[in-house]
Amino acid sequence: MPALNSFKRNIAEYLSGYVDGEGCFSVSFSRRAKLLVGWETKPSFSISQNQDRAEVIKMIQKFLECGFIRRDYSDRTLKLEVRSINDLVKKVIPHFQKYPLISSKRKDFEYFSKICVMVARRKHLNKNGLRKIVQIAYKMNPSGKRKYKQGDILKGLN
Amino acid sequence: MPALNSFKRNIAEYLSGYVDGEGCFSVSFSRRAKLLVGWETKPSFSISQNQDRAEVIKMIQKFLECGFIRRDYSDRTLKLEVRSINDLVKKVIPHFQKYPLISSKRKDFEYFSKICVMVARRKHLNKNGLRKIVQIAYKMNPSGKRKYKQGDILKGLN
Repeated sequence: MPALNSFKRNIAEYLSGYVDGEGCFSVSFSRRAKLLVGWETKPSFSISQNQDRAEVIKMIQKFLECGFIRRDYSDRTLKLEVRSINDLVKKVIPHFQKYPLISSKRKDFEYFSKICVMVARRKHLNKNGLRKIVQIAYKMNPSGKRKYKQGDILKGLN
Repeated sequence: MPALNSFKRNIAEYLSGYVDGEGCFSVSFSRRAKLLVGWETKPSFSISQNQDRAEVIKMIQKFLECGFIRRDYSDRTLKLEVRSINDLVKKVIPHFQKYPLISSKRKDFEYFSKICVMVARRKHLNKNGLRKIVQIAYKMNPSGKRKYKQGDILKGLN
């Protein structure tokens, strides 16, 4: 029915719906002896996809104008991932502020935004800022797996 | 940022995005000795959800004005399901014609629509119609599990 589809799609809303199901906001930490605080802070926004539905993440990449697509051999998916703090703060976060998630994933997004703003202000590079960031990050995605316990990171930050 | 969110959400597009990730269009068949053709045709549109994200499927149920929500104890999800052929043809299908899916799931939707229209016209109650329906249905969701092979159903329909 081409007539029905001739109006302009609202891809912004479509994207928020898609991400409410399939997207993930996460902040992970890696040991980095060379950093003064000993840990690297890595915020990431990602969308995993069966390889037969690559068209959606390609469209989202184009729409958000950021992120890279990579194969995840462990679970045979494609993943669109945004790790650049500049892109997260200037492109990803404003989108979901304007078109908010509706599911409880919205709470994760709010923690994520807070952390990204702190990272953009370089708060993760001093112990006090990193401690706050870790405490927020460990409230996110409670069912997800983590390599380190919160205490492992916090114990060096006093 | 309340000012940003004061415009009206386009839930229709959000819904298509969400369903492109999390929705399922399926047509299953059950043996029914009492039916002349021996098989019942059961089209179903469903969205599965972790129980902690119930708010989305409740919103979708309200938006589509149809379907029922049930617990799926096997995988601890909530499921919104529309089985009424009248609701499928008058509410669900027109929505996705107006706001099409973008992923390859769109192909499944097209087969699904064809079958629903045939069922609404009672074509599934004669052998010739049911044979066509089965042939279309077995092109859908090729990775899904099925209780019967296509041949099991077709062999009684000649």
